[in-house]
Amino acid sequence: MTIRFHKGDISEADAERYTGDIAIDTETLGLKPHRDRLCVVQLSPGDGTADVIQIAKDQKKAPNLTRLLKDRKRTKIFHFGRFDIAVLFHNFGITCEPVFCTKIASRLTRTYTDRHGLKDNLRELLDIDISKQQQSSDWAAEDLSQAQLEYAATDVLYLHALREKLQERLVRDGREKHAEACFRFLPTRAKLDLIGWDDTDIFAHS
Amino acid sequence: MTIRFHKGDISEADAERYTGDIAIDTETLGLKPHRDRLCVVQLSPGDGTADVIQIAKDQKKAPNLTRLLKDRKRTKIFHFGRFDIAVLFHNFGITCEPVFCTKIASRLTRTYTDRHGLKDNLRELLDIDISKQQQSSDWAAEDLSQAQLEYAATDVLYLHALREKLQERLVRDGREKHAEACFRFLPTRAKLDLIGWDDTDIFAHS
Ligand SMILES: Nc1ncnc2c1ncn2[C@@H]1O[C@H](COP(=O)(O)O)[C@@H](OP(=O)(O)O)[C@H]1O
Ligand SMILES: Nc1ncnc2c1ncn2[C@@H]1O[C@H](COP(=O)(O)O)[C@@H](OP(=O)(O)O)[C@H]1O
Repeated sequence: MTIRFHKGDISEADAERYTGDIAIDTETLGLKPHRDRLCVVQLSPGDGTADVIQIAKDQKKAPNLTRLLKDRKRTKIFHFGRFDIAVLFHNFGITCEPVFCTKIASRLTRTYTDRHGLKDNLRELLDIDISKQQQSSDWAAEDLSQAQLEYAATDVLYLHALREKLQERLVRDGREKHAEACFRFLPTRAKLDLIGWDDTDIFAHS
Repeated sequence: MTIRFHKGDISEADAERYTGDIAIDTETLGLKPHRDRLCVVQLSPGDGTADVIQIAKDQKKAPNLTRLLKDRKRTKIFHFGRFDIAVLFHNFGITCEPVFCTKIASRLTRTYTDRHGLKDNLRELLDIDISKQQQSSDWAAEDLSQAQLEYAATDVLYLHALREKLQERLVRDGREKHAEACFRFLPTRAKLDLIGWDDTDIFAHS
């Protein structure tokens, strides 16, 4: 596993590895973007390597990262993008578009299960077993442990391959159009979370 | 109150009254489109008049209505469009686009209340008191009562005016873009209801 570690931003040289779609995930101190700070952003170009960027407290900018994510020619691949999109917008003002969310694609195709976590998807569709042990660790630690770095990396390393598998299913089941519409709405869903509709289904009757 | 009653479809002559946006609602035998048949479609051009169309059992076509609703130059104004859009797609294969939903606009602006029903909106924003008494009546009756016709009509008569008021609020509160994104997604939300995701929030974590 090749992990490139960065403080504050991805280096320009490493940013140049990203010529296509970008797998991305974030680690925070918790699930509330207004309370829990962003600690790590991890990216993968889909070649089996990952860039893990440690974000400082009160850091407001990351120009290389921002440039990559704002590029509308690259799809940003998330697992449960709703959360990460909100975090990236809240911290850096970045609106990620277009996006693909493997959790939504899983919901739309793996109708035989209610387990749409990343771990379950990777095990079933790619026969890869990842550990979720570091998920609830202290991501604001100044020195991230090797285990944390590896955890952060594994969360993005397989997203391209997973997207591929799920996209095949979406096509097979005639649900690509529905998925695309969900992905187009996702950045708005994330912004509504930030401004206070995080616990309402905006489309519900009551 | 001017109500034009039709059986099966709106007449061509009356369809010509619709030169702008269209207020629309439906009455069914219940809330499950696969079980409960469509009985009435009501429309208003926003001039204080309404067309109430009685739909026959197993009716598969309504060409004049379809032509009106498929016209992408006219916004279709609904209150809780999610349901009516699903019903219209299920019965006539019509995808209504673009749409405006006064319930979603209400959710996005009337943040001081959790009452986003049509009755509450009309009372507060237009000072109009409508009766909801006929809501749960037998809409499949061969002869609709005068009270039912009036109920059906009042559900569309004020939607243009209500949209206006809510649109002002959306602009005032800087939420038009969010509302537009919700409206764009709404037809997909309705189709997901029809194919089996009616009780899941597709954007939820779990
Ligand atoms: N309300 C919520 N409940 C649980 N997990 C949530 C969540 N909102 C965001 N998440 C995050 O969603 C990610 C995907 O979860 P899952 O694999 O179970 O689908 C997890 O991030 P990480 O995997 O980056 O730690 C988790 O922290
Ligand atoms: N799950 C649900 N619960 C309640 N009402 C629902 C519903 N799904 C659709 N509706 C319909 O939503 C419409 C708007 O409701 P409200 O005014 O309370 O917001 C009502 O139609 P009608 O007004 O055409 O009878 C109601 O029948």
